Amino acid sequence: MPEEALTVISDQRVAEAWRSRLWPRAHWIEVPPGETSKSIERLAEVWSGLVQAGCHRRSPLVAVGGGVITDLAGFAAATYLRGVPLYSLPCSLLAMVDASVGGKVGIDLPEGKNLAGAFYPARIVALDPELLSTLALEQWAEGMAEAIKHGVLAGGDLWSRLQDPGLRPPPAGESLTKEALELLARVVEVKLEVVAQDPVETEGVRELLNLGHTFGHALEWCTAYGLSHGRAVALGLLASVRLARGLGLLRVDFEGELTALLRSAGLPTQLPAEHARQCSLERLSAALDRDKKARPGHWRFIVPRAPGQVEAMALQGPDQLGAVREAFASLIMPAPGGTLR
Amino acid sequence: MPEEALTVISDQRVAEAWRSRLWPRAHWIEVPPGETSKSIERLAEVWSGLVQAGCHRRSPLVAVGGGVITDLAGFAAATYLRGVPLYSLPCSLLAMVDASVGGKVGIDLPEGKNLAGAFYPARIVALDPELLSTLALEQWAEGMAEAIKHGVLAGGDLWSRLQDPGLRPPPAGESLTKEALELLARVVEVKLEVVAQDPVETEGVRELLNLGHTFGHALEWCTAYGLSHGRAVALGLLASVRLARGLGLLRVDFEGELTALLRSAGLPTQLPAEHARQCSLERLSAALDRDKKARPGHWRFIVPRAPGQVEAMALQGPDQLGAVREAFASLIMPAPGGTLR
Repeated sequence: MPEEALTVISDQRVAEAWRSRLWPRAHWIEVPPGETSKSIERLAEVWSGLVQAGCHRRSPLVAVGGGVITDLAGFAAATYLRGVPLYSLPCSLLAMVDASVGGKVGIDLPEGKNLAGAFYPARIVALDPELLSTLALEQWAEGMAEAIKHGVLAGGDLWSRLQDPGLRPPPAGESLTKEALELLARVVEVKLEVVAQDPVETEGVRELLNLGHTFGHALEWCTAYGLSHGRAVALGLLASVRLARGLGLLRVDFEGELTALLRSAGLPTQLPAEHARQCSLERLSAALDRDKKARPGHWRFIVPRAPGQVEAMALQGPDQLGAVREAFASLIMPAPGGTLR
Repeated sequence: MPEEALTVISDQRVAEAWRSRLWPRAHWIEVPPGETSKSIERLAEVWSGLVQAGCHRRSPLVAVGGGVITDLAGFAAATYLRGVPLYSLPCSLLAMVDASVGGKVGIDLPEGKNLAGAFYPARIVALDPELLSTLALEQWAEGMAEAIKHGVLAGGDLWSRLQDPGLRPPPAGESLTKEALELLARVVEVKLEVVAQDPVETEGVRELLNLGHTFGHALEWCTAYGLSHGRAVALGLLASVRLARGLGLLRVDFEGELTALLRSAGLPTQLPAEHARQCSLERLSAALDRDKKARPGHWRFIVPRAPGQVEAMALQGPDQLGAVREAFASLIMPAPGGTLR
C-alpha cells in the first residue's frame, strides 16, 4: 500500500512529534489535543476531512494518538460510509492498555462523556513502545491506573509482577526493557480476554472492566472533570477495596499492596484538597444515580474480594448504600475549614 | 411496557397526523420534515433529546415517519450509548418498501448524501397500511419507483402482478385491499431476501439493489437534488434498460412494459425540461466518477438483461462508456433553445 493512500487521524501535538518519522506523505487530519476534541463539531470536521481526502470504503484509516484520538477516529471510521477499515497506533500507555483495545469508540455530548459511539474494533492495534518515549510522566501514571486495574482483575502472577519488578517508564531516550514489554503485553491481554467473552457488553462479563470506574466516574463528574480519568480510577480502585471490606466480602487484605502500587506509580490515594469541596455525599449520590447501569437508589458496583476475584453486585438498602458512602468518604480529606456533609 | 417508557422520533408533520392516535403519552422527539433533517445538527438534537428523555441502554426507540426519519432515528439509535433497541413504523410507501428495511441508517454531510451512517437493523419493522391513508399521491409515486425496481430484480410473478392488478393507492378514507397488501408484502420480501444474503454489503449481492440508482444518484446530483429520489430512480431504471440494450445484453425487450408501469404510477419517463440544462454529459461523467463504488473512468452499473436477470458490471473503455452516455442522453429532452453537449 503506498503511503499516499493512508489517511491518519491524530492530534496536533502527536503529529508534531511523530508525523515526519511515521508517514510524512500520508494525508493527516489533525485536531487539537485534549478531551474537548471528542465533540460533535470535531467529528463533523473529521468526516469532512475524510471526504476531502477522497477516502472510499476500502481506504485504510489510521488512528495515531492517545485515548481521545482512538475514540474519535474510531467513531469516525465506524460511521464514515457506514464503516471503513480502522488501524490503531496508540501513543500513550493509557491508550495502549485500554482505549485502543476492545472496540469501544465514541464522542462526548454536552450532557456527558461517551454518550454517542459504537462498538468498532480496529483491524490491527499496533503497540510500538518507542512511541512511549515522548510521554510525560504524568501521562504514564494515567495508563498505570488502568494497568493496575487489570492487575486486580487478573490477580496471580500479574498482580505480583506489577509490584515487583513493576512497570516503569523507560529512562529518557531509552526503550522499555524486554521484561517491561512482556508485562505490558500481559496487561493488554487481560482486557482482550474479557472483551473476547463479551464483545458488545451483553453477557455481563465485560462489566467487570468497570472495576474502580463507578466511583471514578462519580469523582470525575463531581469535580467537573478537574480530576483526570486515571487519577479518578486510582481512587476508585481504592474505594472499591474499602467497599468490599465494608460489605464484609474482602477475602484478602490487599489494600496495603494497592496503596503502595498506586503511590509508586505517582497516583493519588486521597482526593486532592482542591477537589474535596466539590465531592459532598449528596453530589456523589446524584452522580451514582445517573450512572448508565443504575436506577436511582439501586447502584451497581464491581467488588473485589481479592486480586483475581471480582464480581458485579447490585447494591441497595441503607446498609449497602451506607457502605458505598463510607468507602467514598474515606477518599476525602476535608478542605481547610470545611466539613464533609 | 408502559407507553410512557417509549421514546418516539418523528417529524412534525407525521406527529401532527398520528401522535394522538398512536402513543399520545410517549416522549416524542420531533424534527422538521424533509431531507435537510438528515444533518449533523439534527442528529445532535436527537442525541440530546434522548439524554433529556432519560433513555438508557434498554429504552426502546421508535422511528415513526418516512425515509428521512427511519434513517436519522436509526442512526441515533445505533450510536446513542453505543446502541439502543430500535423499532420502526414507516409511514410512507417508500419507507415501507425500502428505507426502513435492511439496516442502512445514516445522515447526509455537507459534501453529499448518506456519507455517515451504520448498518443497524430495526428489531421489528411494523407495516401498518392505515398509515398510508394520509400519504399524498406524489409521495405514493416515490415509493412505487422502488417497488418497480424490486419487480425488475425479482421478475416472474411479481413483475406481472405489478402490471396487473398493480399496486395503487387506496381511495380516500379506505384501506388497501387484501390483494394490494399481499403485493406490498411481496415487494418488501424482495429486499429482505437480498439483504439476508449480504447484510453489510460485503458479498456483492446487496449491490443489485443499486439497480437504477447509479443513474439516479447522478441525476439527483446534477439537478442539485431538485429531482426527487423516486423520480430519479424511475428515470435511472429506464436508462438501465437502455444501457443493457446498448451493450447488446438485453434478452427481453421490456422497455415498453417498464415505461407503461412508470407512467401508470405517475412517474416520469423523460427528464423534466426544467432540469435538462443541469444535466450535461460532462456533469454526468463527473457525477459518475464520484460514485462510492467507482474509480474515474471505471463505472459500475447494475444491468438488467430481463426482469429477474440483473447483474453488476464494471464498464470502461470508449464503447462501454459511450453506451452509458447514450442511455443517459436518451432521458433528456433538450431545453428550449439549448443543446445537449
